[in-house]
Amino acid sequence: MEFDHVIRKRKMIRKYLPNKIPDRIVSKMIKNASKAPSAGHTQVQEFIIVTDPATKKKLRQASVNQKSIEEAPVLIVVCSNTSRSVGRYGQRGRDFYSTIDGAFASMLILLTAVNEEIGAGFVGAFEDDKIAKILELPEYVKPIGIITLGYPDESPAKLERIENEQLVHYERW
Amino acid sequence: MEFDHVIRKRKMIRKYLPNKIPDRIVSKMIKNASKAPSAGHTQVQEFIIVTDPATKKKLRQASVNQKSIEEAPVLIVVCSNTSRSVGRYGQRGRDFYSTIDGAFASMLILLTAVNEEIGAGFVGAFEDDKIAKILELPEYVKPIGIITLGYPDESPAKLERIENEQLVHYERW
Repeated sequence: MEFDHVIRKRKMIRKYLPNKIPDRIVSKMIKNASKAPSAGHTQVQEFIIVTDPATKKKLRQASVNQKSIEEAPVLIVVCSNTSRSVGRYGQRGRDFYSTIDGAFASMLILLTAVNEEIGAGFVGAFEDDKIAKILELPEYVKPIGIITLGYPDESPAKLERIENEQLVHYERW
Repeated sequence: MEFDHVIRKRKMIRKYLPNKIPDRIVSKMIKNASKAPSAGHTQVQEFIIVTDPATKKKLRQASVNQKSIEEAPVLIVVCSNTSRSVGRYGQRGRDFYSTIDGAFASMLILLTAVNEEIGAGFVGAFEDDKIAKILELPEYVKPIGIITLGYPDESPAKLERIENEQLVHYERW
């Protein structure tokens, strides 16, 4: 699909059909996401693919009970492995760069979903310590987002947006 | 350009020719970036376009002296206006969602640059308080990244990357 068309078409999907999505598409998402930039090319981004219903249920409970987490046939949990960056960047690496880098990879997954005609949603509202326990994350791995994936069972209206002119400043705020 | 081609072609550019880039392209970047998702559609992302040499020089000094900041003909400083999210999300809004949302918008600018055949680089290494002073950011506005833009004066080699298989986990870490 044309790049600009992908950008225009992207929407968060929260309702999914139960049908599985092809492994080929999930692999394509990981392939694109792993091309995301990272601070000093530390490549902190790692991905946990979750399809097990029991795990999805627990993840839902750790994420303010968001239904889409349990209902989506596949989740990709984007994590940042700070063991690859913290020695170089210290606290700013752990608190800031790791979040930026994980979000870069997440954005590429959300866009790839549009290009592959799959629905996707990003969830950032979760309790980090519960997610870490459920997914057995080492202490140096920070969860950044849970991406829900599947064929859409809704067609949400376009969201209203603030006019561009109100979001742009010249030379200073 | 085809979406997958944009993803494959993206590279950080750090050396720029002095030639200006058309306003049309900068506007296109803002247009695409403003379509980024945000926590609860709070639309925190705002953009400061900087072309003034004196301001670029100061920003360079606040960003571990990265030359590209002074040399790029245009900068887009991506900020998150947390006044639109903090009431709803508190500290997690300010520390985490605002960074994710700013990174989402930044990723869209980096990809749009590829699609418009412009070079772009992302800088996250800066002192927030100095950036705030230079750009007169209110206390509730958090700088997320400085994006350098211009026609490339280098053609960096493809970076080596960790194999996908090493970055993917199934069901748990």
